[in-house]
Amino acid sequence: MNKGSHSEESLLKKISRSATSGRRSTRIRFLPLGIGDDAALFKPKPGHETILTCDWFLEGTHFLREKHPPDSVGWKCLARAVSDVAAMGGVPRCFLLSLALPETHTGRWLDQFLGGLRRASRKFECVLAGGDTTRMRDILINITVIGEVRSTHALRRSGASFGDILFVSGRLGEAELGLQVLRRGKDHTAANSLLLKKHLYPEPRLALGQWLARKRLATAMMDLSDGLSSDLSRLCTASGIGARLEMAKIPAVRISNADRKRGADPLRLALHGGDDYELLFTTSPKKLHLLPQAFRGVTLTPIGRITKKPELVLLGENGRERLLVPGGWDPFRITR
Amino acid sequence: MNKGSHSEESLLKKISRSATSGRRSTRIRFLPLGIGDDAALFKPKPGHETILTCDWFLEGTHFLREKHPPDSVGWKCLARAVSDVAAMGGVPRCFLLSLALPETHTGRWLDQFLGGLRRASRKFECVLAGGDTTRMRDILINITVIGEVRSTHALRRSGASFGDILFVSGRLGEAELGLQVLRRGKDHTAANSLLLKKHLYPEPRLALGQWLARKRLATAMMDLSDGLSSDLSRLCTASGIGARLEMAKIPAVRISNADRKRGADPLRLALHGGDDYELLFTTSPKKLHLLPQAFRGVTLTPIGRITKKPELVLLGENGRERLLVPGGWDPFRITR
Repeated sequence: MNKGSHSEESLLKKISRSATSGRRSTRIRFLPLGIGDDAALFKPKPGHETILTCDWFLEGTHFLREKHPPDSVGWKCLARAVSDVAAMGGVPRCFLLSLALPETHTGRWLDQFLGGLRRASRKFECVLAGGDTTRMRDILINITVIGEVRSTHALRRSGASFGDILFVSGRLGEAELGLQVLRRGKDHTAANSLLLKKHLYPEPRLALGQWLARKRLATAMMDLSDGLSSDLSRLCTASGIGARLEMAKIPAVRISNADRKRGADPLRLALHGGDDYELLFTTSPKKLHLLPQAFRGVTLTPIGRITKKPELVLLGENGRERLLVPGGWDPFRITR
Repeated sequence: MNKGSHSEESLLKKISRSATSGRRSTRIRFLPLGIGDDAALFKPKPGHETILTCDWFLEGTHFLREKHPPDSVGWKCLARAVSDVAAMGGVPRCFLLSLALPETHTGRWLDQFLGGLRRASRKFECVLAGGDTTRMRDILINITVIGEVRSTHALRRSGASFGDILFVSGRLGEAELGLQVLRRGKDHTAANSLLLKKHLYPEPRLALGQWLARKRLATAMMDLSDGLSSDLSRLCTASGIGARLEMAKIPAVRISNADRKRGADPLRLALHGGDDYELLFTTSPKKLHLLPQAFRGVTLTPIGRITKKPELVLLGENGRERLLVPGGWDPFRITR
């Protein structure tokens, strides 16, 4: 009953159709009521806690309208928020999409954005349950993800103790270097494709997080979104402890000679680069033998230990120690 | 461990402190884990469904930085989203706050915003569980509210049938006229204060919604956020029916002679004015005798009936009928 060609109603229909395309119309067990009412209804699993998390994804801050393909914006806005569920050891279930767009972006841009979002939604088995749309000069996205975890099994940031061993999954700094490749906009070598993929289409470590929680192998966990130095500092603050990292053990991004000439520093990228969405977790020494070197193709690397003194120390390859200052992404700090 | 005076960390601390000030530090039953981790943990009540809803509250679209007191922005962003829980007949439990601010607004503006948000949070018994903050040129707010309702008791938009009686709570058009008072910025008479209050500090009809759901008195329900003509059209579409409104019965805002001279039209305000956050619901004629004229001081007014033909008809005081075209708030429609 709307007059405009792009009324809010017609936008919602477009989003809703995209979300359900290709899915059989059978009801989803945990979603008695999806898009189209005042609110959605979610049916929690008995014996489980509900995981709640939300994330901004804003033009100019988290992505660049002219540089990031809309398909990647769609994928990544959901991946980022799902990564917080992975970091608790949980299973994502559904999400709410808040989208503000200029009128000029309600056509092809929106279609491609919804394409990326739909692929991510299928990959992470996290269905669209509702949202809100409005018009704005800038492209603004906010995603709320709802997940589940067996009661008392969630892995928090606050559980690390003195003597625990610090692990990271994957290789750090790749996404940051991928952003540099994207900004340059050329030289798409095979190595660069991998870096670009890590930046544009990150894959939250859901299976790993769930396995660590189910087997109770980790004492604390979080995802790496702002950079190891900043995120580890948060884990230490939450647990009331410190950490001592061994520089030689940090699995840093592999860089080409060309990147090295441009001044790229693998350790710096690994310590302060954002957007990796790998998992950072601590394990009691007693359970160390239960951790494999890789879980489903993702390497697990011990990079240091938890210390009593609440500070971050970096042990250099020369045997010297220095304090590590958080230098990752912080939107409210202009200079790094 | 942050360098900047307004690092994201320090902002989060400010928000977190504000949310918990004055509350005893005893644990909240339904929130095993609140602010400060990758995600929050919510413990659902057995036998209940979880209500999920999110709402934009954006500078320039939903409020004006220079006109709306920050205290009202804080109150209203939560009230709007809580109103969607009221519309399902549910109880709000907790919310996630996504806030993007210019650096210039992290001091006094933020303090007053948090003051209004805290008062709303207490009033609606809906606690802050987490969120995300970042820096932006514009003030951007997104609120996700999580609520609960006994399984199968939620009131949807889609339950209205032919012959049902259409009700609204309160008086319509007051918030829209309140916005006009705010824009003029002067003449604060007692009548205007009431209108301003309705616009700046709306109170979602939680008790009414919960009572209607618990007693199973309504067949369909939604809240009035964009205006009766637009919202009723949505309820009709969802239910696959139409409605016939009686102009003489619509409880329209009372206007002063001065407003009338300025061209204010009570019926137009009542039909198309947004932001009222009253409830629109339908009742089976068999249950009509169970509805009082007022519930806890809020009038309940029958304004028409549900018809088979899927269109909105307005019956004038002269006995003539005309089609009612949705003319409420739609951010993607420039002309009304």
